[in-house]
Amino acid sequence: MNNKYLNSVLIIGMGLIGSSVARVIKQKKIAEKIYAVDKDKITINKTKKLKIVDDIYDSLDNISLQFDLIFICSPLSSYKNIFKQLNNFVREPTLITDVGSTKVSVINDFKSSVDNNKISFLPAHPIAGLEKSGPEHGFAKLFDNRYCIITPINSDDKFIDSVSNIWKSFGMKIEIMEAERHDRVLAMTSHIPQLIAYSVVGTATDLETQMKDEVIKYSAAGFRDFTRLAGSDPIMWRDVYEKNKEAVLEMLGRFSEDLLTYQKAIRNNDLKFLEDKFFKSREIRKIIEELGQAGTFDPTEKTKN
Amino acid sequence: MNNKYLNSVLIIGMGLIGSSVARVIKQKKIAEKIYAVDKDKITINKTKKLKIVDDIYDSLDNISLQFDLIFICSPLSSYKNIFKQLNNFVREPTLITDVGSTKVSVINDFKSSVDNNKISFLPAHPIAGLEKSGPEHGFAKLFDNRYCIITPINSDDKFIDSVSNIWKSFGMKIEIMEAERHDRVLAMTSHIPQLIAYSVVGTATDLETQMKDEVIKYSAAGFRDFTRLAGSDPIMWRDVYEKNKEAVLEMLGRFSEDLLTYQKAIRNNDLKFLEDKFFKSREIRKIIEELGQAGTFDPTEKTKN
Repeated sequence: MNNKYLNSVLIIGMGLIGSSVARVIKQKKIAEKIYAVDKDKITINKTKKLKIVDDIYDSLDNISLQFDLIFICSPLSSYKNIFKQLNNFVREPTLITDVGSTKVSVINDFKSSVDNNKISFLPAHPIAGLEKSGPEHGFAKLFDNRYCIITPINSDDKFIDSVSNIWKSFGMKIEIMEAERHDRVLAMTSHIPQLIAYSVVGTATDLETQMKDEVIKYSAAGFRDFTRLAGSDPIMWRDVYEKNKEAVLEMLGRFSEDLLTYQKAIRNNDLKFLEDKFFKSREIRKIIEELGQAGTFDPTEKTKN
Repeated sequence: MNNKYLNSVLIIGMGLIGSSVARVIKQKKIAEKIYAVDKDKITINKTKKLKIVDDIYDSLDNISLQFDLIFICSPLSSYKNIFKQLNNFVREPTLITDVGSTKVSVINDFKSSVDNNKISFLPAHPIAGLEKSGPEHGFAKLFDNRYCIITPINSDDKFIDSVSNIWKSFGMKIEIMEAERHDRVLAMTSHIPQLIAYSVVGTATDLETQMKDEVIKYSAAGFRDFTRLAGSDPIMWRDVYEKNKEAVLEMLGRFSEDLLTYQKAIRNNDLKFLEDKFFKSREIRKIIEELGQAGTFDPTEKTKN
């Protein structure tokens, strides 16, 4: 499929990711018209001001158009309802894809809600994000050079290439994976680091007041990296832990066991153990930098206070 | 003291911090001459090429000069030996300060090694850093707008202001703290996040090979923030856990207890608990951003591969 022929797209959910999808489609001229739907009034107003879509609606019920391609960019807990609505809404052949952080739950929600054969759904997860939420924080380059994992429901579906090519046109690298495997890998690379970040920030919050103030004040020492993650959208993450419960609990168990070995080494002054582990971890970091997946951290502030 | 009157400084240890000290002194013309000592040949050669000091030596034994001010910027395990050497080396009144991440151990090492009344030592900890090590990664702005915690051995020492003013002239904000309190606060803001980062990276490293490759590949999802911390100097960190053992074990205990409450909430589908915690954490992040201590993260790469 040549991207130039995409007539119109609809983006459901105009948060950070939805708005970035709108921006990249506009910037790269991937579709003629871009529409959005969001139930939140503040988000609708922000989106209008940003001028990144042709029109935005507060509900699918108020849209009479049909679309070539629909992106679902809303929290996982909204999927079931959205699939049910789309099942009624879609009258013309329509490609649908999504950006959800878990894939088994998304596929289950789809299967239990959709029996409309005009709908061709490719579950996808663009591995890109930022700790900010809201359409004002989106940007077109968010997807650039990042991976997009697709987990097709049927591997011989004809439309897989069509939807993949859209993600590719955003600047992404496509990887095909089983949904179950995706959920385990992401539990480790994303859901566990995020949960631990929340937990460390929570521990600091529970300290006596003076100590807490000092922890915040001196956060430049490492703690701030955890708070950056912990600045992410709470609802999105709450849904992730509900939907990927089993894999998260498994990886959390592994992590807790490992952390105990460090604790024991510190208690027993086993400096050799610590040194070996620390050198190994540095190697992993180097690999990630070499792969160009490290991002860029600037220890200074963008705006001085 | 007017900084212009500093004649000569010596920096012991030309890693990231030592080289940043050299750069800021040179840039802000805080001293007439800057000298360094490092026992590592590669570091010596790198430092010479960078032209950030007037001369660099491989040992204090080979220096005949005396200095107005000496910075100790080497790993904590080297302090005892350095203090013993300085005890013999110093013949003229000399200010000494350091950058060590723990302060109780530093003060104990000092007290047990130094009886030279020409030495005036102010323990200090500039809360600034980066995951890189080596003199080539230092930069003068590292200290800008960051806190420098000082933990004076005797609160009425006359030289405290003189040394504090040097740190201030780097662009730092000075805070006075008891050494014990410093070590507890830093256990929470720095040593625990760092240890957890190492542990998460370690857990990922232990996964079966294919899974491990995928975790590295898709690290942009949150894991990469942990690997950034885990890229830090292994020897420096090994020493921190030896020297701040008690506070680290206490804070680690608190963290582990808290993490279990999240685990339990996920297992029991207690979404309200998770949501509340996540919203609270986001508030902490906002405070850190407002305080100008958040740094700047750019999810794109500096150099494309």
